[in-house]
Amino acid sequence: MSTSTPTSGRAIVTRGPYKEGKWTLEDVTIRPLQKDEVLVHIWASGICHTDIHFGDDAKDIGGYPRVMGHEGAGRILALGPGVENYAIDDPVVLSFSYCGTCPLCVAGRPSHCTHYDTLNFHGTLTFSSPTSDSSPSSPSILGTFFGQSSFASHTIAHVSSLIPATPFLRFPTDLFQLAPFGCALQTGAGSIVNAAATTPSDTVAVLGLGAVGLAALMTAKRIGCPTIIAIDRLPTRLTLAQELGATHAFNTTELGDGLADAVREVTQGVGPSVVLDTTGYLPLIEAGIGFTRPAGTYVQVGTTNPKVELKLGVFEFMASGKRIVGAIEGECVPAEFVPRLVGWCREGGFPIEKLITPYKVEDFGRAVEDMLAGKVVKPVLMW
Amino acid sequence: MSTSTPTSGRAIVTRGPYKEGKWTLEDVTIRPLQKDEVLVHIWASGICHTDIHFGDDAKDIGGYPRVMGHEGAGRILALGPGVENYAIDDPVVLSFSYCGTCPLCVAGRPSHCTHYDTLNFHGTLTFSSPTSDSSPSSPSILGTFFGQSSFASHTIAHVSSLIPATPFLRFPTDLFQLAPFGCALQTGAGSIVNAAATTPSDTVAVLGLGAVGLAALMTAKRIGCPTIIAIDRLPTRLTLAQELGATHAFNTTELGDGLADAVREVTQGVGPSVVLDTTGYLPLIEAGIGFTRPAGTYVQVGTTNPKVELKLGVFEFMASGKRIVGAIEGECVPAEFVPRLVGWCREGGFPIEKLITPYKVEDFGRAVEDMLAGKVVKPVLMW
Repeated sequence: MSTSTPTSGRAIVTRGPYKEGKWTLEDVTIRPLQKDEVLVHIWASGICHTDIHFGDDAKDIGGYPRVMGHEGAGRILALGPGVENYAIDDPVVLSFSYCGTCPLCVAGRPSHCTHYDTLNFHGTLTFSSPTSDSSPSSPSILGTFFGQSSFASHTIAHVSSLIPATPFLRFPTDLFQLAPFGCALQTGAGSIVNAAATTPSDTVAVLGLGAVGLAALMTAKRIGCPTIIAIDRLPTRLTLAQELGATHAFNTTELGDGLADAVREVTQGVGPSVVLDTTGYLPLIEAGIGFTRPAGTYVQVGTTNPKVELKLGVFEFMASGKRIVGAIEGECVPAEFVPRLVGWCREGGFPIEKLITPYKVEDFGRAVEDMLAGKVVKPVLMW
Repeated sequence: MSTSTPTSGRAIVTRGPYKEGKWTLEDVTIRPLQKDEVLVHIWASGICHTDIHFGDDAKDIGGYPRVMGHEGAGRILALGPGVENYAIDDPVVLSFSYCGTCPLCVAGRPSHCTHYDTLNFHGTLTFSSPTSDSSPSSPSILGTFFGQSSFASHTIAHVSSLIPATPFLRFPTDLFQLAPFGCALQTGAGSIVNAAATTPSDTVAVLGLGAVGLAALMTAKRIGCPTIIAIDRLPTRLTLAQELGATHAFNTTELGDGLADAVREVTQGVGPSVVLDTTGYLPLIEAGIGFTRPAGTYVQVGTTNPKVELKLGVFEFMASGKRIVGAIEGECVPAEFVPRLVGWCREGGFPIEKLITPYKVEDFGRAVEDMLAGKVVKPVLMW
């Protein structure tokens, strides 16, 4: 296949909010590759709340139609101009994209690349619909969401989004399980390892037990933290959290305002030294910052509406010695961190199989509904 | 001298707010030592804004009369019951007090000891006035402020407040210079080293150039940070900061709302990776958090009125990857950190002599006025 040859495939095209039924599986063609891009045959793609969030409200990121998806795994079909260190058929996991040259990338913090929004949210015109007027060479559908738009059988990925998977594939089909590593799993694990710098003497509380929260919890367990408190409103998630290593499971609905006291009671009266919020729910954020141990670390991972404001008493906060950390993508350099995570799986200390539920692509609607209803933790589409 | 023998001396007794003229140098006698206490002959004591702050409003910490002072240095005159590892005549620097057994002390964070307020602020009845009805054995004047109340020629210090100074005295008179190490200098230096974990690749901005801010700046210089931005409203302080290693000096009065742009302009457009506020002034706090580099660290050191509230947009903060750290006493274990700092002085990389102005005790009023007026950085009383 030449780099200038467009190819065709299928994609979940987002033509409006999901809840309005405007996500449809369609045949698409793909424009020629540009500099630093590769064509990827997607094997599997995880679904994340972020896909729904940006898919429901795309006005600030270029609008519709577009293709979401930012947890892809697959094999390289073609190399664009300037791509080195990769070959046709290489297996890859896809993560976020970054420029590699700005001050933040140079400082080793690609998840805060100064071009992050442009490279990951705004997208570039990538796909064409065979039924529309647009041709592959003048595409009308936005792609390269998070440098990948992996809700497609074939997609264009930026080279910075690639994580070489050859080193950690035992069997070719392992690739199916690797999709969520590029976002949810590295976010949860990295928030514990990088953002909170968690050590074996830390006591940990995780607010919200989705894929990110459970990955965080599994990471705390792997580190050897003696107290791991799982907090959610779904009994099924609390049960799963206990299977995965939580020493305590607290139901927010049952406890209500008693949550903080319950948390302190199992942490020597002082609170956990590491608290992670994945809910983005202000009352829980406030409670979490409140019950974080003095001199402890609170990590904000969950997203909120941009208008949500936290009020912080400056003197009380200063005197508490706490640290509040904003974290996206677990402060990871994906090409370094994902291989570590896969190694944990191999060693048996990171049982991702308990989080993943595979779906046929044709059933993507059910996959989304099951995720939104809390029936499954991490739905993964099989292409 | 027996541990049960009271002694006499002089102290600056705080009988009300300083600004009302209610601090007076008086003869006092001192109660017998209790468990884990020592009697210290104070050689020098630094004056800090915290002394004025708590001296002006003592209603929540036991009221008046009391003796302030929490940057003392001197020699041990007597040992109370249970004191080990110290001997009569040992030189000591005094720092804050802690219990040593609570979960925070055990975790190596004595500055967040769960008994911190009781041990450091509330004080215990220690001194008597020869002119009053009280006797040394039933004292009426509160002492042990920060475990030391070192605005006195002779005072009682808790053993946890002691830092052995023998190892780093070249000449006995070095003790005069060591008083501010136990608070201001360790707070500034520790905020850079411990709270911000500053590395040689960090760019640093310091808001407010008192003793704490200048100690922070000297520490950043010693670490080798390539960009060190000093921010204050006093031209004399900005000049001093440049002598001490600041690469840029910005006057807040001159720049006004242009401060953030000026800071970003000298930090590759992204802002400093470490920002320290020692002012406690909300508009500067907000500006400082704002111009902290994405994924950078902002450290709150300056105190505010307890009612001052910071509003933080949760989504924006999360996405910024910034970390906001509350820090007191530089997150130090004084007995470990102060010897390191003294070592830096010996090597020539921490010129504290440029910060310290000695005053006779009888001139304490002038010392306080000069500090409040910004004429001197760190006044030190010589007893």
